[in-house]
Amino acid sequence: MSNKGLFSEKLKIVNIGLRSFKETLDVSGAESIHVEWKPPVGITADAAKILAGSRVRIEEANLKAAAIINGGSPKLVGMGSAIDVVPGMQKNLILHAGPPVSWERMCGPMRGAVMGALVYEGFAKTPEDAGSLAASGKIRFEPCHEHQAVGPMAGIISASMPVFIVRNETHGNLSFCTQNEGLGKVLRYGAYAPEVIEHLRWMEKTLYPVLKNALVSTGPLDLKALIAQALHMGDEVHNRNRAATSLFYRAIAPHIVRTAPDTGTAVRVLDFINGNDHFFLNLSMAASKAVLDPASGIESSSVVTVMARNGTDFGIKLSGTGGEWFTGEAPVPDALFFAGFTREDANPDIGDSAITETGGLGGFAIAASPAIVKFVGGRAEDAISYTMQMYEITASESPAYQIPGLDFRGTPTGIDAVKVVQKGVMPFIDTGVAHKKPGVGQVGAGVLSAPEEPFRKAVEGLAARLAGNK
Amino acid sequence: MSNKGLFSEKLKIVNIGLRSFKETLDVSGAESIHVEWKPPVGITADAAKILAGSRVRIEEANLKAAAIINGGSPKLVGMGSAIDVVPGMQKNLILHAGPPVSWERMCGPMRGAVMGALVYEGFAKTPEDAGSLAASGKIRFEPCHEHQAVGPMAGIISASMPVFIVRNETHGNLSFCTQNEGLGKVLRYGAYAPEVIEHLRWMEKTLYPVLKNALVSTGPLDLKALIAQALHMGDEVHNRNRAATSLFYRAIAPHIVRTAPDTGTAVRVLDFINGNDHFFLNLSMAASKAVLDPASGIESSSVVTVMARNGTDFGIKLSGTGGEWFTGEAPVPDALFFAGFTREDANPDIGDSAITETGGLGGFAIAASPAIVKFVGGRAEDAISYTMQMYEITASESPAYQIPGLDFRGTPTGIDAVKVVQKGVMPFIDTGVAHKKPGVGQVGAGVLSAPEEPFRKAVEGLAARLAGNK
Repeated sequence: MSNKGLFSEKLKIVNIGLRSFKETLDVSGAESIHVEWKPPVGITADAAKILAGSRVRIEEANLKAAAIINGGSPKLVGMGSAIDVVPGMQKNLILHAGPPVSWERMCGPMRGAVMGALVYEGFAKTPEDAGSLAASGKIRFEPCHEHQAVGPMAGIISASMPVFIVRNETHGNLSFCTQNEGLGKVLRYGAYAPEVIEHLRWMEKTLYPVLKNALVSTGPLDLKALIAQALHMGDEVHNRNRAATSLFYRAIAPHIVRTAPDTGTAVRVLDFINGNDHFFLNLSMAASKAVLDPASGIESSSVVTVMARNGTDFGIKLSGTGGEWFTGEAPVPDALFFAGFTREDANPDIGDSAITETGGLGGFAIAASPAIVKFVGGRAEDAISYTMQMYEITASESPAYQIPGLDFRGTPTGIDAVKVVQKGVMPFIDTGVAHKKPGVGQVGAGVLSAPEEPFRKAVEGLAARLAGNK
Repeated sequence: MSNKGLFSEKLKIVNIGLRSFKETLDVSGAESIHVEWKPPVGITADAAKILAGSRVRIEEANLKAAAIINGGSPKLVGMGSAIDVVPGMQKNLILHAGPPVSWERMCGPMRGAVMGALVYEGFAKTPEDAGSLAASGKIRFEPCHEHQAVGPMAGIISASMPVFIVRNETHGNLSFCTQNEGLGKVLRYGAYAPEVIEHLRWMEKTLYPVLKNALVSTGPLDLKALIAQALHMGDEVHNRNRAATSLFYRAIAPHIVRTAPDTGTAVRVLDFINGNDHFFLNLSMAASKAVLDPASGIESSSVVTVMARNGTDFGIKLSGTGGEWFTGEAPVPDALFFAGFTREDANPDIGDSAITETGGLGGFAIAASPAIVKFVGGRAEDAISYTMQMYEITASESPAYQIPGLDFRGTPTGIDAVKVVQKGVMPFIDTGVAHKKPGVGQVGAGVLSAPEEPFRKAVEGLAARLAGNK
């Protein structure tokens, strides 16, 4: 792939209506053109008129939503089996990333992960049998997001899987996420080989009880404080979680040692976490979900409470439009591919991990994490530009999550879908890339801008409600 | 204290001959005046003439010295008792930070630390008795630096103290440093209360054997790789070591668990390291010492191989002037003081920790660590300016240690004393601040510029040698 192509394309977006970014880019030698305005994402004239007439009402509602997000206090309070603790979980139910999707429309890696999960649950002996079962109608599929949960990449949660439990202490609501599997051949990227299933069993039988007991010993862990520190240490807690994983490890290690059944088990668990710099990702996702959920249902608010992809569709929800999903085609990320893979192998964007961006982290905080941009061929200045751009489409700045390089300015938080549409500036998202075929796994990592369609539909949906409410 | 005063003062130095910094400062709103040139630090006309005539020879020698520094490969290879492993260590010998100093000229905190060490060694029952013994002539005092060792603040190493052993794999030389005591009342800041001595005994009897055994299990730990990662995570490994301590903790924790005599001991050691974000400082110092030592003794080189302070004098050594110390009065740092303390309480600058700056870390890498500048009242831009300024006085850029915010540019490495004198740009140093009276401890943390006098003398000393060599 051409990294140059990737960044010149992105930079064109950066410059819309924001001359200061143009100047930064000029200094860094990037090619860019400054235009004073871009036509907004095309919404109907009626919708535009309604939104213009409701400007004050929307902004007030958005400040309310942003205050709820920024006032959240996510704490890791324990663990449990999905069947025992995730609301509405059932034996024959598989939760997945993104908006609702049928087996027929599911992308390759999500199908692969479903097949692996059915083997893991003992419902099928082979991936082929699992595929037949999945297609039979006997298995139900629902989004994680409809069950207070989130899952990275394919985001599969089945009944026996252990989950972390995060509680937003401010509002009392819970969120759930599985344990991160590590890198290599893993279920979340659509792999289902026997060693993938074996590893899931180890995570259930060994990792889970050890962590569960250790968390009883630690008491509630303040994820907000931990994430805030990690942003001072080069993470944006989506594509880079090295600092957050380190801090989590430091906090929990003595408790693992104290509570594990034996020294060998403690060492294996410590080695597993130490060997996976993304271990914290699932916790940053659950923390983001926990603070965003209470911000839903605020009448007239255009603040985005969910951005999620199932590898086929990119879906969002707004605070002011209730439980409704607004979807569009999921784009293929611009990525750096692992040796032997190309863009041709890449599945369209997948995973609930964009909940971090929705909560003011990930791509929105990428100025704190220039190493990610460097990894995909950009420069440190690009990372600053991306975050600066996100301030244009957010309702607030985080009081807790800060960017050291921007003199500790709070991260842009609370995506305002109306601003997205009006300015034509799309949310910037970090992501991993799965192979489009089931059974393969990860092929790269990269960045992308959210597609326009879900935002256009969501804003029109909000306008329709505003009209109805008049 | 007035932080505003601190930074306007510093910024005046920043702008000398470097218009680009002036522009940065203008943007950030700082008050500054740009002057095209400042008279060099006043050296004799003879010396100036000799140096001008030897420019090429000096620069070639400096490139050689910088290549040795940058080619170093410091690894933590084990631990031992000072008496057993530190070259020339003896029972009645106390090693201290900085250039040589007699008991009579020793500052308060160094006296306090010596008194504590004599009680710790069992040579005296009370600090008062220890003071009498120290003044009696029966105890010898020599710089850590004369024994391949370094020590933070007072830098006291006595015979029974355990030390880390770092080996520069490129050249085979060793360096030594004690274990970091943690914060609060500690010997290195001049405290000597019974709990300080008790804690030193715990470090000797419990912490040391556990870490020593764990390090046998890990095998040599690559400190260069660890520091390089830490710079990507907001540390400059002098005043901020949170990331490096985290990474060290992750690397060693499973080995501690595996090799400790029992679970309770393992947990206490893990809790101690986890409770002290500066634990890694002593290792970053020993790593810097290990890579700098082989760069000494290069004829004609004006590269600084040691910067160290004993709380009375600030001393440096140049590669091309052999073992000779060049000293000047140690300045009082600009600092943020803990509640209840003021600049009046502050001892002049003290400690061997400026070995990190000498090796391209600490204040030279502060652009990687804007949180430190923020802590003392500055802005993220100031951190960038300080590091940019240091490129003006260094012979090279580190190939391993990088600044993310400067698009991963290597840190300014290998201080060229001739450039320091010619440009009047003094090395920028992060530091802790000790109370000037013995027995009190830390009163703050801050930054300072090295004094001119040692550099003036060193450059004149080099000129004298160059003249002799003609």
